[in-house]
Amino acid sequence: MKSELPIAPVARLLKNAGAERVSEDAKEEFAAALEECATTVAKKAVAYAKHAGRKTVKEDDIKLAVKSSCCE
Amino acid sequence: MKSELPIAPVARLLKNAGAERVSEDAKEEFAAALEECATTVAKKAVAYAKHAGRKTVKEDDIKLAVKSSCCE
Repeated sequence: MKSELPIAPVARLLKNAGAERVSEDAKEEFAAALEECATTVAKKAVAYAKHAGRKTVKEDDIKLAVKSSCCE
Repeated sequence: MKSELPIAPVARLLKNAGAERVSEDAKEEFAAALEECATTVAKKAVAYAKHAGRKTVKEDDIKLAVKSSCCE
């Protein structure tokens, strides 16, 4: 699966968190890890929508999926 | 803090996870939740770099931060 999350905004999150410098490897690792995490949450949200008899993923599906996955 | 993650690639992750349709609210909620999670991980990574006496956040800082945060 090709990568979806762009590197630049992900790297800005590291800067916003107080990073003075960030290696290129670290940016790529961060983007890949976020995408993996996001995919886990997304699959749960899709399953919750189907479980509720819907074809449309709604805000509540996301909230439930986030609650049962992310981020301690 | 302004939002950094763009909606379109985040919404594509939901499509890739099998969503037929996704409400606009769900896309925004997903992007916001990911950004919150990413910020948590980023702050840990910055702290780990400082703890190691570095000003540069490296791949290993990200890996350790992800391991202690994301995503079950």
